[in-house]
Amino acid sequence: MSKKYKTAISPTREEDYSQWYQQVIKASDMAENSDVRGCMVIKPWGYSIWENIQKNLDQMFKEIGCKNAYFPLFIPKSFFEKEAEHVDGFAKECAVVTHTKLEDDGQGSLNVAGELTEPLIVRPTSETIIGASFSRWISSYRDLPLMINQWANVVRWELRTRLFLRTTEFLWQEGHTVHSEEQEAIKLTTIMLNIYAKFAEDYLALPVIKGEKTVSERFPGALRTYCIEAMMQDKKALQSGTSHFLGQNFSKSSNIKFQNKEGCEEYAWTTSWGVSTRLIGALIMAHSDDDGLVLPPRIAPNHVVIIPIFRNEEDEIKVKTFIEDFLPQLNNTSYHGDKLRIEYDDREISGGEKNWQWIKKGVPIRLEIGPRDVANQSVFMARRDKAHRDKDSISRNEFLNNVVSFLDDIQFNIFNRALKFRESNTFLLDDYNEFYDFFTPNNIDKPMIHGGFAYSHWCGDIKCEEEIKNRLKVTIRCIPLNSKYEEGKCIFCSSNSTKRVYFAKNY
Amino acid sequence: MSKKYKTAISPTREEDYSQWYQQVIKASDMAENSDVRGCMVIKPWGYSIWENIQKNLDQMFKEIGCKNAYFPLFIPKSFFEKEAEHVDGFAKECAVVTHTKLEDDGQGSLNVAGELTEPLIVRPTSETIIGASFSRWISSYRDLPLMINQWANVVRWELRTRLFLRTTEFLWQEGHTVHSEEQEAIKLTTIMLNIYAKFAEDYLALPVIKGEKTVSERFPGALRTYCIEAMMQDKKALQSGTSHFLGQNFSKSSNIKFQNKEGCEEYAWTTSWGVSTRLIGALIMAHSDDDGLVLPPRIAPNHVVIIPIFRNEEDEIKVKTFIEDFLPQLNNTSYHGDKLRIEYDDREISGGEKNWQWIKKGVPIRLEIGPRDVANQSVFMARRDKAHRDKDSISRNEFLNNVVSFLDDIQFNIFNRALKFRESNTFLLDDYNEFYDFFTPNNIDKPMIHGGFAYSHWCGDIKCEEEIKNRLKVTIRCIPLNSKYEEGKCIFCSSNSTKRVYFAKNY
Repeated sequence: MSKKYKTAISPTREEDYSQWYQQVIKASDMAENSDVRGCMVIKPWGYSIWENIQKNLDQMFKEIGCKNAYFPLFIPKSFFEKEAEHVDGFAKECAVVTHTKLEDDGQGSLNVAGELTEPLIVRPTSETIIGASFSRWISSYRDLPLMINQWANVVRWELRTRLFLRTTEFLWQEGHTVHSEEQEAIKLTTIMLNIYAKFAEDYLALPVIKGEKTVSERFPGALRTYCIEAMMQDKKALQSGTSHFLGQNFSKSSNIKFQNKEGCEEYAWTTSWGVSTRLIGALIMAHSDDDGLVLPPRIAPNHVVIIPIFRNEEDEIKVKTFIEDFLPQLNNTSYHGDKLRIEYDDREISGGEKNWQWIKKGVPIRLEIGPRDVANQSVFMARRDKAHRDKDSISRNEFLNNVVSFLDDIQFNIFNRALKFRESNTFLLDDYNEFYDFFTPNNIDKPMIHGGFAYSHWCGDIKCEEEIKNRLKVTIRCIPLNSKYEEGKCIFCSSNSTKRVYFAKNY
Repeated sequence: MSKKYKTAISPTREEDYSQWYQQVIKASDMAENSDVRGCMVIKPWGYSIWENIQKNLDQMFKEIGCKNAYFPLFIPKSFFEKEAEHVDGFAKECAVVTHTKLEDDGQGSLNVAGELTEPLIVRPTSETIIGASFSRWISSYRDLPLMINQWANVVRWELRTRLFLRTTEFLWQEGHTVHSEEQEAIKLTTIMLNIYAKFAEDYLALPVIKGEKTVSERFPGALRTYCIEAMMQDKKALQSGTSHFLGQNFSKSSNIKFQNKEGCEEYAWTTSWGVSTRLIGALIMAHSDDDGLVLPPRIAPNHVVIIPIFRNEEDEIKVKTFIEDFLPQLNNTSYHGDKLRIEYDDREISGGEKNWQWIKKGVPIRLEIGPRDVANQSVFMARRDKAHRDKDSISRNEFLNNVVSFLDDIQFNIFNRALKFRESNTFLLDDYNEFYDFFTPNNIDKPMIHGGFAYSHWCGDIKCEEEIKNRLKVTIRCIPLNSKYEEGKCIFCSSNSTKRVYFAKNY
């Protein structure tokens, strides 16, 4: 029987996945619930990850010609009402500003005053308010394509919230483009989906399935919604980014017209696409372990943390001199076009306490350096993608020469582990009873809530989709873009089907 | 008589300064009014300037150890009420969220529903909501100093709004720090003021006066407010950044306590400091001319724009080949640690139209390149800090070798011009009648609205300050930090005074 080590996070993933998630966030000091219902405070460690997401995605957007801009936080109720499906989708959960001041009631209490004639909605998404600007900006085909992105906060009055995954206020980017041709708009939608997939895989080490949503899962007002879907460690799916082809719906409701080359006026074709702080939730749930956060290097606030270990002043001087000698070289090492981000933790707390703090925060590489290492001109290296007891003593120079390839190896391992996990929990299921059992843990041999992703045939009928959802709380995550023609029978009704789709429980 | 050239902006500064300002924004395509009262849309050209402000200031904050975080948009009314002066200062102009959904009234119209038991204020500033987090984060002197910044949108329900200068919603950063010692907190307040001043002068080319606000002009709840003040071209002052020493006011109202080294609990000392999109207004009003925006290179979205000029296809090939030959070298030129930002404008519109567009947008250097330049291996260079007719033909190589020093020279010139303007419009005034005339344009020889900054003695009495404000709409902009002891008489009441302060009309 192997020794059972105490884990830093309690409960473990197996014991209570949902609680484990909250505890990882707490232990890594990423975020906390605020005093405002459903709104989170993103603490420096969590925000720094968001800054890295922003920086890298922003560059990818700019490379294809998108420009950033900023539009009002508030949307007049009348704008919101212009697109029928859109208002249906968002009216049930929005923050409404009705007044513009607080007035003393003469008894030391403040009452709301200055009622607005038209209430304002705090943006849950900005199609309608951005559309109003676009209709002013565009007059000719020469103004197109127009590709605009904004980094902003949005508000959706969610009833059940969970840090990063679902919060009343969250941070996101929303891109909005306008095109003269339908096909060009559709193409842009898939270009953005590919950017999201590339970003998720290369930076977040998150393998994703690219696909299209079914009609019932579309963005309110969209003609097509594309998405990337990832598998979390509890085998549920998490939608990590969406890209919508809006057709002419919003150009008609916002009056976005242009004069074409022939001099005739046409409604334009628009798209929108976004990712949010939810990506951080995906990152946590896909990679972290029972000792806390595990961060892919490309998105980590720090790549390497250095922890000096000493028991007396003499050793302290030795160890710190040794570290400060190679620190400049390390700080100047370049890593994927950026500088390595090094934390030299010389706080006056014990080495063991520091070590555990950085384990829980998920820093990819920890170096512990004590007098013995100084004597050997070596460093004691621990990698966060391995067990925390798995440490190597390597020569200082070997470390300095190879730190970038160690980080690349960590990135690769984290991605591969997640990919293998998804692959080994994705099954081709063709029998409804098997499908039912797969999603219905009904005996003690199935401690996980369900079996993973089912890749099964679906006839395309919304009724089958609904019935499965009602019976099993399982939805079609997407119709994958790379799905091939294959004759089969719908998993629910046994009618003819020509392709498989991904079914899963989801966040 | 010199020839009078038509200007790109009408009216000119002299004709109508306020209208000129609006027209510069329109002509440079920086921003527009939105359909939401008082809220602006920041268009890509304006937002790109904000991105440059963010990037550079953010780095300066991080260099002294500040970390970014994010706090909720909404503040419960009860939090807001905790600090009496603070709520007095902001309650009259705030957006209040009272409902959380819209419901169909059965007649096709949506009514507000889901009333909140406690209304939420859209943050006008975040001292109270951030204080609630800080009180959780801090327990010991070891947790201090805590230095946190957030980039966010804030809302103040202003009655009269003007793009960038005063809008209902605006973008800003707000830094919040907590200290164990009073003196350390005061020192931090001045460190931040110095960062703002350095940023304004080095990047925005905006000479500023650093000083302290009088009691009546302090931030609501602060013990001291420091500011930087700049002179606009209409000789009015514009407050461009503030840094507040909050004493223990907010730590008492938010219960921010720490255990000191002796093990006793104490209230902490806090500061807050911010700059906003108002800086863009300052930038426009300080430097621009009657042809449009003038951008200091260090903050410009593009440093150099290249405009190919040709009349036939043969020339087009020649000119484009010539440009594309040196473009890679130009794109790789480094400028203050960054890459040069080059716009190669090969749109299919006339060279003259392009040229005027870029003049109005304020790009520091414009290169016009036609067949004659190709033959001479030269470029036709125009600098935005000079008159638009003042162009030089210089050899291609001379340009490539000297482009950075040209930009530095432009930056230097723009700063110096603004500094000279301020100096030549600042007067030591010691006589009330002179002071009165200075601020009261009462004959045709004084077309400007007033004379500029008056550097005059003030006894320190709030009544003199008020009386001057009531009579002349002139306020004390600040008590400059570098003011020297000097015996004199108060400009208003003739009582003894020991130092001069800056009086001005202001935005």
